[in-house]
Amino acid sequence: MATPSSARARATVNDVAWAAGVSRQTVSNALKHPERVRPDTLQRVHAEIDRLGYSPSTAASSLRQQRAGAVGMELTGLGAHSLSDALAPFLVSLTIAAPSHECHIVTFGSDRGGPTLERYREMWRSRLVDAFVIMDTHHDDPRPTWLAGHGIPFASFGRVWDEPGFTAWADVDGCAGTQSAVDHLVARGYGAIGFLGWPTGSLVGDERRDGWLAATARHGREDPTLQATSKQDLKESIDAAGPLVDRVGRGGAVVCASDLLALAVHHVLLSRGLTPGRDVGIVGFDGSQSAQAHGLTSVAQPYRAIADELLTQVHDQLTSGQHRPSGVMLTPTLVPRSSSHPDPPPPHHHHQEKS
Amino acid sequence: MATPSSARARATVNDVAWAAGVSRQTVSNALKHPERVRPDTLQRVHAEIDRLGYSPSTAASSLRQQRAGAVGMELTGLGAHSLSDALAPFLVSLTIAAPSHECHIVTFGSDRGGPTLERYREMWRSRLVDAFVIMDTHHDDPRPTWLAGHGIPFASFGRVWDEPGFTAWADVDGCAGTQSAVDHLVARGYGAIGFLGWPTGSLVGDERRDGWLAATARHGREDPTLQATSKQDLKESIDAAGPLVDRVGRGGAVVCASDLLALAVHHVLLSRGLTPGRDVGIVGFDGSQSAQAHGLTSVAQPYRAIADELLTQVHDQLTSGQHRPSGVMLTPTLVPRSSSHPDPPPPHHHHQEKS
Repeated sequence: MATPSSARARATVNDVAWAAGVSRQTVSNALKHPERVRPDTLQRVHAEIDRLGYSPSTAASSLRQQRAGAVGMELTGLGAHSLSDALAPFLVSLTIAAPSHECHIVTFGSDRGGPTLERYREMWRSRLVDAFVIMDTHHDDPRPTWLAGHGIPFASFGRVWDEPGFTAWADVDGCAGTQSAVDHLVARGYGAIGFLGWPTGSLVGDERRDGWLAATARHGREDPTLQATSKQDLKESIDAAGPLVDRVGRGGAVVCASDLLALAVHHVLLSRGLTPGRDVGIVGFDGSQSAQAHGLTSVAQPYRAIADELLTQVHDQLTSGQHRPSGVMLTPTLVPRSSSHPDPPPPHHHHQEKS
Repeated sequence: MATPSSARARATVNDVAWAAGVSRQTVSNALKHPERVRPDTLQRVHAEIDRLGYSPSTAASSLRQQRAGAVGMELTGLGAHSLSDALAPFLVSLTIAAPSHECHIVTFGSDRGGPTLERYREMWRSRLVDAFVIMDTHHDDPRPTWLAGHGIPFASFGRVWDEPGFTAWADVDGCAGTQSAVDHLVARGYGAIGFLGWPTGSLVGDERRDGWLAATARHGREDPTLQATSKQDLKESIDAAGPLVDRVGRGGAVVCASDLLALAVHHVLLSRGLTPGRDVGIVGFDGSQSAQAHGLTSVAQPYRAIADELLTQVHDQLTSGQHRPSGVMLTPTLVPRSSSHPDPPPPHHHHQEKS
C-alpha cells in the first residue's frame, strides 16, 4: 500500500537490526515469533521499531505484489438503504476481520442513491483497491456483471441472482432462519403463528416466507391467510401489522422478515396497551441493534463468519485466480429476548433480559 | 496510494495519448476540462482510458507526496457504542466528502471495546493512513494525547476536552440545539417543557441540558424539577421517562439529549395509549434514522459540514503544518416531525409527515 521511500527516508529492517544490535532474523522473529526472542531483546527491538517508525512488511510486500492491499466497500446505502440494519454491523465485522486476511477496508460512496458504477470505476482506476465486497445484490443489479466483465475481483454478501455461475458469495439461509423462529415460538407455546414479510418478488423475502410456510406446515398449523406484506418502511409496516395482529390474536405470534417489520408489530402492540411477548410473540430477522434495544427476539446474521468467508474468496481470486465450486450458505442463529417470552414478566418486563 | 509499476506494467498518460492518437495535453483536458475537447475525441480518449486501465493521477501524485492519501477512522464502536446513532451517518458523510479533499477513508477497529491505541499504532506504522479522524472524545480519552505526542495529524469530531490548546476539531453546538428545541415547542403551543438527559458529568449532555435551562428561563417557564436522567440505554431510559411524562402531563413536552432517549419517551406514550405529538410533544437529538423512522422531531447534526471541516483541518496539517486559531462550532438544525405536532392528526397520524 505505502510507496517506497525516496523523498522521505523510511526505516528498513536493517536500520532496526543495526539500532537494536541484533540480526535481521531476530527483528523478523520479534515480529512473527516473539516467543523465540529473549524478553529484554524483544523489548529493545520493539523500542527501535517504535523510535524509527519501521513498518514491518506492508510496504515491501505490497510493492512485491503490486497490490493496494485494500478491499473497497460501498457505503452509499448506509443509513438510508432498505437493509441498512445489516450494513453497519457487517461493515464493522469486515473491518475487524480484514487484518487477518492481510488487507484493509476502504469505504466509498456517493450522494446519489443506489449503486453507482461510476464510483466503482473510479476506485478501481485509481488503484485504491484490489477488489470489492458488494452486498444487497438484487435482480438486474448492474454491479456483478460490470465487475465480472472488467475482470475485477469481488465477492458478494448475498447470492448473485443474475449470474448463477458466479460462486464468490456468502449468504444467510433465510429459510432456515424463519424455520428456527417458528420452532422457537411453537416450543414457547404460542398459538397462531403469522408472518409479516415484504411484497412477493424480493428473493430474500420470499425465502424467509418459505421457511415460515414450511415450518408451520411441519407443525401441522399452516395457515397462509395469516400473513401480510409491507415495504421495508416503518409507517407502511405499522399499517400492515395492525390487521395481522388482529388475526393471530392474543397468545399468537408474528415472525417477521426483518427487525424493522418486527418493530412495527411491537409498535402496534404497545399502542394497544399489549405487552410484546406476554400477549403476542414477535421474532424479527437480522439481529440488529434496534432489535436488541427493544428487547426483540431476532434471527441474527453471522456477520463475522460472512466477512471472513468473503475476504477468503477475494484472497483466493487475487492469489490463485481460483474460484470455489459454489457459494457458501451460512445458518443464522436465533437470539431469544423478551418479545418471545410468553410468561408474565416481573414488575418491569424490560428488566427480564438481565435474568 | 498505489505503488509505481514494475512487475505489472501500468498504463501511463503517454500510452493513452498514443492509443487514442491525441496529445498528452488532450488526455489531461479530457479528464479535467472535458468541455475543451471535441465530443468524438473525448469518447475516444475515455475508451482508451477504460481499455488500458489508466489511473489518471493518484499513483503519481501520491508517490510525489509520499502519502497514502488516506484518513483512518476507527469503527470499533459502530453498533455498540453509546453514540452509535451518530457514527454510521457520520462515516457515510466522511466517505462521501473524502474525494473532494483528495483522500479516501480507511476503516479499522478491533473486537475489544473502547478506543484501542494499539490499532492506531498499527495503522500508522503500516503507513496505511496519513492522518486520523476521531470522534466521541471524552475526558481521559487516551487518543488525543497519544496522537499529538507522536506528531500524527488528526482532527476530532467533538472538542478535545483534555487539550484545550488543540484546535483541529469541529463540534455541534448542543446548547443552541436544545434551545431551538424549546423555542420550537413553545411556538407549537406546548405547556410544561421537561428534559430527559444523561447523568451530569457528560460534557456533551451537560451542554444540552444548559440549552434547555436557558431557553425555558428565557420564555419565563423554567422549572428545574422537570428533568430526569438516564444512561444511553433504552431500558433504563424508559424507566426514567415514565415519571417525567407524568410531571409534564398532557399538553406538555420533553426535550431529550439523544434520539434514543426520545424513543424511550415515545415508548412510554404508546404503552399508555397516548399519541406522541398530540398528547405530549417529543424532540430528540442527533437526527438519526431511528428518529426518522418513528416520526420523531430531532435536532439534526450537520454531518456533511463536520466531515468537510475535519478533512480540511487534516489537509491543512499535512500540507502546511498550520493549525487553525480555534476549533469550529457548528449549529444543528431542528427537523420537525409528527412528535412535535400538537394538532389532532388525520386518520393515521403516521401519514402526517407526507403532507
